[in-house]
Amino acid sequence: MKNGKKMHIGTLMTWAGTHVGGWRMPDAEHGGEDLDVVVRCAQIAERGKLDFVFFADGLATSLDFHPSSMLHLEPLTLLGALAVSTSHIGLAATVSTTYSEPYNVARMLASIDHMSKGRAGWNVVTGSQPEAAANFSKEKHPPHAERYAVAEEYLSVAKGLWDTWEEGAVVADKATGQYIEPSKMHVLDHTGAYFKVRGPLNITRPPQGYPVILQAGASEAGLNFAARTAEVVFASQQDIDEAIAFAEDLRDRCEKAGRPRDAIKILPGLAVVLGETQEDARNKLNEMSTLVDPVAAMKVLSDRLGEDMSRYSLDEPVAELPESTLMQGHARVLTSMARRKNLTLRELRDLACVATGHRVAFGTPEEIADDMEEWFRRGAADGFMIKTAYLPAPLDEFVDQVIPILQKRGLFREEYEGTTLRDHLGLPRPAHPGARSEAAITTDAPAD
Amino acid sequence: MKNGKKMHIGTLMTWAGTHVGGWRMPDAEHGGEDLDVVVRCAQIAERGKLDFVFFADGLATSLDFHPSSMLHLEPLTLLGALAVSTSHIGLAATVSTTYSEPYNVARMLASIDHMSKGRAGWNVVTGSQPEAAANFSKEKHPPHAERYAVAEEYLSVAKGLWDTWEEGAVVADKATGQYIEPSKMHVLDHTGAYFKVRGPLNITRPPQGYPVILQAGASEAGLNFAARTAEVVFASQQDIDEAIAFAEDLRDRCEKAGRPRDAIKILPGLAVVLGETQEDARNKLNEMSTLVDPVAAMKVLSDRLGEDMSRYSLDEPVAELPESTLMQGHARVLTSMARRKNLTLRELRDLACVATGHRVAFGTPEEIADDMEEWFRRGAADGFMIKTAYLPAPLDEFVDQVIPILQKRGLFREEYEGTTLRDHLGLPRPAHPGARSEAAITTDAPAD
Repeated sequence: MKNGKKMHIGTLMTWAGTHVGGWRMPDAEHGGEDLDVVVRCAQIAERGKLDFVFFADGLATSLDFHPSSMLHLEPLTLLGALAVSTSHIGLAATVSTTYSEPYNVARMLASIDHMSKGRAGWNVVTGSQPEAAANFSKEKHPPHAERYAVAEEYLSVAKGLWDTWEEGAVVADKATGQYIEPSKMHVLDHTGAYFKVRGPLNITRPPQGYPVILQAGASEAGLNFAARTAEVVFASQQDIDEAIAFAEDLRDRCEKAGRPRDAIKILPGLAVVLGETQEDARNKLNEMSTLVDPVAAMKVLSDRLGEDMSRYSLDEPVAELPESTLMQGHARVLTSMARRKNLTLRELRDLACVATGHRVAFGTPEEIADDMEEWFRRGAADGFMIKTAYLPAPLDEFVDQVIPILQKRGLFREEYEGTTLRDHLGLPRPAHPGARSEAAITTDAPAD
Repeated sequence: MKNGKKMHIGTLMTWAGTHVGGWRMPDAEHGGEDLDVVVRCAQIAERGKLDFVFFADGLATSLDFHPSSMLHLEPLTLLGALAVSTSHIGLAATVSTTYSEPYNVARMLASIDHMSKGRAGWNVVTGSQPEAAANFSKEKHPPHAERYAVAEEYLSVAKGLWDTWEEGAVVADKATGQYIEPSKMHVLDHTGAYFKVRGPLNITRPPQGYPVILQAGASEAGLNFAARTAEVVFASQQDIDEAIAFAEDLRDRCEKAGRPRDAIKILPGLAVVLGETQEDARNKLNEMSTLVDPVAAMKVLSDRLGEDMSRYSLDEPVAELPESTLMQGHARVLTSMARRKNLTLRELRDLACVATGHRVAFGTPEEIADDMEEWFRRGAADGFMIKTAYLPAPLDEFVDQVIPILQKRGLFREEYEGTTLRDHLGLPRPAHPGARSEAAITTDAPAD
């Protein structure tokens, strides 16, 4: 058992917890703009030997946003700080491919990977809030299909830039004065539908080759993009059978894309509410529900569904949504759960408030561990993206109370065995294309 | 004397020192991609009570670049790391306004200012290397005048975004559930020639109000932009009388722009080479000159002049440059020095190699302190941007040998007296426009 396959566990640190009312709990601390709180939380996660901490991001704000996402530090500069404040845990963040330049983002991620000695992860998102367009001199948020086409090209440009320097390019021989081995520098010369990028990047290849690529897209386009490129997928299924079907489907797509079935670590989101008993946990959940502003609550659900839900009646069953909404993001998963459990809109809203639409598990540490073990053993999950209602106390409790049970059962590491995020996740380090195929990268380096 | 006006001293940490051959010195360490080296250097500067460390930046690379700037960490993510690794010293970096979006950069700088508790500085540059255009899907580097027009609008958008949240906007009252005071949130709704940015920013106003604005532009457009907006200017005059004239001219322009004459701290670049005697220092300089690759050396000078100098004859006096070149950057300062001292191109190149064209002072610690004191007392400088030939040993020596002399003479602080970069520089914290004028910012906040 001890040597068997292990779970992978990341935790969402955004930014004051996932429950819309969580920040109001007496012992809650808001990490949005307070580096000390974020550092303490990351160190708690590292004490629990978690694979990574993860920061979601957006490029707009509004008074009706989740109190956790309204105002907060910028994730890439924050990961720079955490590279110093932690020593082992992976450091992952969302960066949108719609409102930035691949040269800028590729070098920032490379920089974080160098500073952290191989611990960076990039959650590639195609969007952000639709409100973002107005902050970036754009008339409107580009349509779904175009965003995915841009993302696909953007990611390939980023990888191409990371490959512009082979290992060993920096000779730095003080005696001879040779600083660079020119044959190991490559020009990218990318010209595509959306980007024209010459390269090389002005930073060498990240220690991990590429930062770990994470994704959460659940639409058809998102799943196919993930099948081709993702190494970690955040899933959002609420039901174990749906989750198994989702995982099998994604593994099939992965295989069709020419990758091994297990190339992607599938981590369903799981909000954990711990108690000394089931009832105690349920009471905590109910206590938090009383702390929620209804407008903010509905905005969370609307964002999750990609549809403004405030115009529907609160106490009737969740309305049928148009197919154009259902094909995007997490709309199908959430509405299918609402159907199955015959939820009113109010009930769905309150549930979405706990964890922005992700699955909620409440109970004793043993019960939570049982739940996680079942999902893991039945192939519904390679691990979990743990969310806590607020920070830092519930994260502390998860690390102190649930992790030891998983470790005792041989389901989770007792110590970090490697040093990079790829090591923790059991992901291979991508070889430089020069080592894979001569033709894989354009180069104007002098011939030998 | 102890209570008199003090110098302000920043240091350039880019990345392995400023001498083209410096990295080859036996005790040189290359901080380009090694966070540990950079952190150690920043901590040395902090031990010396310097106002700030500064990182230059570019958005392209090439085999003929200075070995210090060919490959290096990305400055904004690096400042995140230094926010944790240092406690008092200011943290400044170059960010170009030509190849990025103001919303992204404004929030990153705000994030660094929050994480460092008010120590961020932004060196606003309009360009980067002309090679950068090819990395950002642009046909060519925009012309000088357009770059300045963009920069001016960009900076005003960034300031507008920093002002979208007034102090006290975050109430976060756990008892009442009020998270935000809506009247203190403002929408920017900027529409200009180059940018359309609605706001608000998704991070609150930086602790310093705005990060400190640094500039180095020496062209006519650059000087006028600085006169209107800069708080620190990096100057490049080689001669004290030229420096006094430059400072007076900039103070005149500042006054014409409606700001106090002393609103800008003028910090000429000064490369320091210390020795036990003048001869010892000169020998060190000569030793380094033997370590320079001629191609890299000429590229440094060409970049500085904005003109490819490799086509001119090395052993003849420096050629007359076209007026279109002279009106940009540091071309006039350098060629005027070459004329005055009757330098050949080779001599100008070798001098430019020491400090990418900035003034070089070599001698004993007392002699260096004398030189700095003279420039300071005669009004040629409010302080200095210190450059060292390589890192970290020469920076250590400057801090251990020159700083104590300046302190003894009452010319430099013995301890940090404030906590923010504005405190160190004696710069006012910009009040929120809401406190300056009701009409200064557009708002759609609910009326009371």
